[in-house]
Amino acid sequence: MNATFDFDRYDRIRPIRWTGDALELLDQRKLPFQVEYVRCGTSDEVAAAIHSLTVRGAPAIGIAAAWGVVLAGMKIEAADGAEAARKLEAPMQRLNDARPTAVNLAWALARMRRVLGAAGPDWRDVIAREAQAINDEDLAANRRMGALGAALIAPDSGVLTHCNTGSLATAGFGTALGVIRAGVAQGRIDKVYAGETRPWLQGARLTVWELQQDGIEPTLIADSAAAHLMKTGAVQWVVVGADRICANGDTANKIGTYQLAIAARHHGVRFMVAAPSSTVDMATPNGDAIHIEERDPGEMFAIGGVRTAAHDIGAWNPVFDVTPHELIDAIVTEQGVIERPDAAAMKAAFGG
Amino acid sequence: MNATFDFDRYDRIRPIRWTGDALELLDQRKLPFQVEYVRCGTSDEVAAAIHSLTVRGAPAIGIAAAWGVVLAGMKIEAADGAEAARKLEAPMQRLNDARPTAVNLAWALARMRRVLGAAGPDWRDVIAREAQAINDEDLAANRRMGALGAALIAPDSGVLTHCNTGSLATAGFGTALGVIRAGVAQGRIDKVYAGETRPWLQGARLTVWELQQDGIEPTLIADSAAAHLMKTGAVQWVVVGADRICANGDTANKIGTYQLAIAARHHGVRFMVAAPSSTVDMATPNGDAIHIEERDPGEMFAIGGVRTAAHDIGAWNPVFDVTPHELIDAIVTEQGVIERPDAAAMKAAFGG
Repeated sequence: MNATFDFDRYDRIRPIRWTGDALELLDQRKLPFQVEYVRCGTSDEVAAAIHSLTVRGAPAIGIAAAWGVVLAGMKIEAADGAEAARKLEAPMQRLNDARPTAVNLAWALARMRRVLGAAGPDWRDVIAREAQAINDEDLAANRRMGALGAALIAPDSGVLTHCNTGSLATAGFGTALGVIRAGVAQGRIDKVYAGETRPWLQGARLTVWELQQDGIEPTLIADSAAAHLMKTGAVQWVVVGADRICANGDTANKIGTYQLAIAARHHGVRFMVAAPSSTVDMATPNGDAIHIEERDPGEMFAIGGVRTAAHDIGAWNPVFDVTPHELIDAIVTEQGVIERPDAAAMKAAFGG
Repeated sequence: MNATFDFDRYDRIRPIRWTGDALELLDQRKLPFQVEYVRCGTSDEVAAAIHSLTVRGAPAIGIAAAWGVVLAGMKIEAADGAEAARKLEAPMQRLNDARPTAVNLAWALARMRRVLGAAGPDWRDVIAREAQAINDEDLAANRRMGALGAALIAPDSGVLTHCNTGSLATAGFGTALGVIRAGVAQGRIDKVYAGETRPWLQGARLTVWELQQDGIEPTLIADSAAAHLMKTGAVQWVVVGADRICANGDTANKIGTYQLAIAARHHGVRFMVAAPSSTVDMATPNGDAIHIEERDPGEMFAIGGVRTAAHDIGAWNPVFDVTPHELIDAIVTEQGVIERPDAAAMKAAFGG
């Protein structure tokens, strides 16, 4: 088992590319069948891409939004950052409103506002550097969190993950998938299971595809087969990402995460949340305070244009759920590992 | 709340129709998009329809096979039942082989053989009456089980079901869906949620459609949204069917049932299994003794011919799982209700 490894060998995909005057986003609605980048030349095109899930994953959304601010800056004239900030407030608000639950979006925009407010005449360079820094810090954080998370996993373990928390959802390497990449590279993980993640099938479409690109062969399961899988003893850890982590450790993540956490506890399978510290929201006391985004019920009725459900029916389509901290064995950020997270442990780690 | 109700108002679908000289089967491969009956004029056409899943659901398969024997009888001449039985053995064997694992199929054919062997020159009438009796007893059992199950449900409850256990899978009314029909009719149930039931989507395609036909408006959810739904307080009972109930109450049912039972217990939501007593298998001591069928992983990769997963990947596709009796609050058969089922309670109810 190696404590370090060749990152590039296990991290080939980049969902966000900055060209200098445009943002290219790997279109995640078309993966894995078409590998195609969408070009965004304006901040509103970036907002639309975020809203339409062309780019998805909390960290990736934050990075895209930061570049969206840079694009908006190209369309205005301002003598200094303060003036630019006033002129950019409307497009920044539209970027912010593109998705309601992911905290990284607001966090990235707050970073952009902060540097912008303090910038002089070179404000355009300042915000471009900040957007690049948000990207680069995310990649570094993921590599750090991958190493920290993998260290918790005993050799020859099986792991189950949910949704897509990989390179596609971040600047690269991934959060929960970063832990899994590191664990595989170090020989700790010998079997990876991925839930297909209805209704958007991020697991079936994205996670299995991106692991394949890096030479890892996952096994796909129906989301509802997870408890039965755990009963067979095939998995020792569930490793997932997070869209928002509250001050007491309660964690909002893709719908289905909570159900996995309950099943994991029932079977003595351990449960890890891996997410950058930017996902931690110490201003939200607990999961009850999180607004859960509900999307169009129509997403439940068709797959790839093929109708899969009866007509004229109702559906309930919450995008996220909240896993209470009591069901989480470890929260891993780039800053360290919090075992058995609760309000005290979170406060010790993140202040606030 | 009414203790009785107009059954016909809530039970309009008949998947199996006997015309006097042919069997008409509602083609479940085409539902809910085409409502089309397939006409079977021979026992071999019935066997083919069973094999191809035109008719599905263990009770419905048994009934169809019984009518298949009647059709076979129309093609032969015999002085009495014993002679007819000899001549009908080959077509009966072909019916039996259409789905060799379906226990109701063998059970229904055994009933047909028994009456045939004892019949005189009126053997044709005898087997036609027996086929009709198998059908009618199934419908009566479902209505009885519906009333018994519904009586456990408090007024103004929400329920969640899984897979399809309705009129489509039986002579009519259904097992778990029969409980739900009765509960709605009696004003006990005011909200019905149906899990879509990956990978075959029986919930999304069949359950929501058949409830609609009876004026019940279900709400479809992703299988993985069940725990989050329970947390909102929207459901008080999970009501499911069974493929086999063991001597200690452990119950094999569609994959995902076990995960629902764990989540239900976690939330204090009650869990009911509704199935005819023919599903009880006192010769199987517990769930560990049940072989869980695994189907082609390819079922996980496409829906309606549209690829939904990355290429060249592996998948695990178990069809059933086992819910241990400790997680079941009530097993309902046409013979009565077993609360908190265990080996002693099952033995008291079913002997063996």
